[in-house]
Amino acid sequence: MKNFIKKITHQAGQIILEKFGKVGVKYTKSNIADVVTEADLAANDYLVEQITQKYPEHGIISEESGESKAAAEYIWIIDPLDGTRNFATHVPIFGVIVGLAKGGEMEMGAVCDPVHNQLAFAEKGQGAFLNDKPMKCSDTKEWEQSYGFGIAALDHGRAQIYKKLIKLASQKQFWMNAFGSAAISSLCVADGRRDWKFSLGGKVWDYAAPTLIMREAGCIVSDIDGQPWTLDSKSLVAANEHLHKKLIKIIKN
Amino acid sequence: MKNFIKKITHQAGQIILEKFGKVGVKYTKSNIADVVTEADLAANDYLVEQITQKYPEHGIISEESGESKAAAEYIWIIDPLDGTRNFATHVPIFGVIVGLAKGGEMEMGAVCDPVHNQLAFAEKGQGAFLNDKPMKCSDTKEWEQSYGFGIAALDHGRAQIYKKLIKLASQKQFWMNAFGSAAISSLCVADGRRDWKFSLGGKVWDYAAPTLIMREAGCIVSDIDGQPWTLDSKSLVAANEHLHKKLIKIIKN
Repeated sequence: MKNFIKKITHQAGQIILEKFGKVGVKYTKSNIADVVTEADLAANDYLVEQITQKYPEHGIISEESGESKAAAEYIWIIDPLDGTRNFATHVPIFGVIVGLAKGGEMEMGAVCDPVHNQLAFAEKGQGAFLNDKPMKCSDTKEWEQSYGFGIAALDHGRAQIYKKLIKLASQKQFWMNAFGSAAISSLCVADGRRDWKFSLGGKVWDYAAPTLIMREAGCIVSDIDGQPWTLDSKSLVAANEHLHKKLIKIIKN
Repeated sequence: MKNFIKKITHQAGQIILEKFGKVGVKYTKSNIADVVTEADLAANDYLVEQITQKYPEHGIISEESGESKAAAEYIWIIDPLDGTRNFATHVPIFGVIVGLAKGGEMEMGAVCDPVHNQLAFAEKGQGAFLNDKPMKCSDTKEWEQSYGFGIAALDHGRAQIYKKLIKLASQKQFWMNAFGSAAISSLCVADGRRDWKFSLGGKVWDYAAPTLIMREAGCIVSDIDGQPWTLDSKSLVAANEHLHKKLIKIIKN
């Protein structure tokens, strides 16, 4: 199963990479940001077919094709192309997210960054690995030295969190990226390239596999109220053990 | 001269790319964000040597080696490795910036994104080109459909601009990246992948060549007060013709 999830995640990454910069954009959803590219659909078809063939009894929740067999013990939770708006605008920051839950708990997760040839994999209790090397979250202790991730899509709800961070920034400097891809920001936090991230309004496929990978790399992952992240959580705050409480406090204040 | 600037910018990109993910970080400056890597210095040495050999009478302003021959008619304005903190933390978003001013006006500019094999070049009045194909800014007209760039390094001054954007975001949604590299964000705005960017507190090497490239691609580039950008400007606001006034208004309100 471990080799299977790594293989299909990598292969889905190759499918989208092959189409990067080439395919047109189909504005089939209501918002321009919510574009669906041919790549998205092709990677989804591939993943769903592979999973259904190998594990016909398993359920699937996919950004593109919805939910099937929701009562199954094993549920695959996939985003075939995370960072669609980057992909559609030819910005090379996007990825494939594939998670597997068993009895409502994350069991395995994989994320592929095909442009930069990176494949992250984690299994519950077994650690997280990037191209087969152990991943470890950062050990940055001071907020002012930290470098984290905000959110690219700004709206009313997210603006409320940004307000608090910006208020803090006017007193204490820090750095914050917004890449527009949960797959890539999660990889960066899990392997210590960045120290924290927060997300509000994402879907379960944005959070599930990334949470397992970040936790197995040593990060603390909660919702924005500081409660441990579960499959029902509607938000995500991840950071190393030194900065997680601080970040929750900033967001909640 | 056109082939020379393209050649040295590309070659400096190869020098830093070759060291990406390999070199250690020397914390020789006071702030962790202000790291100088071996790559930075190697690219600077290469650029300065090439320019000095070919044009011994020209001046050079470099992030790494300071200013020389400030009274010369031709001044090269270079940032051998823009996005140093990304580079140092193994995040593949950085570039080389090389500009040439003549009599206080930008004459030529080049930007290399070595990871993604992109070289942008512009000459005053002759248009801008990405890998020899014409670059054109976006034609997004509505703010709510726009996707721009903020700043990754947050401090007191930048927080004041963010406050205004965040206030707007609580009413009208829009998207905003923060990549932590002026080179890469400028490329994205110049070729229409993104619609706008703003920057405060950057140095002349962050702005000079990117401004020429963005202008030659059809963007309007000013300081944060809306005055046309010049070599003395301490800030930068760039956008397509539809959104520039709007962005200035948001920032100044």
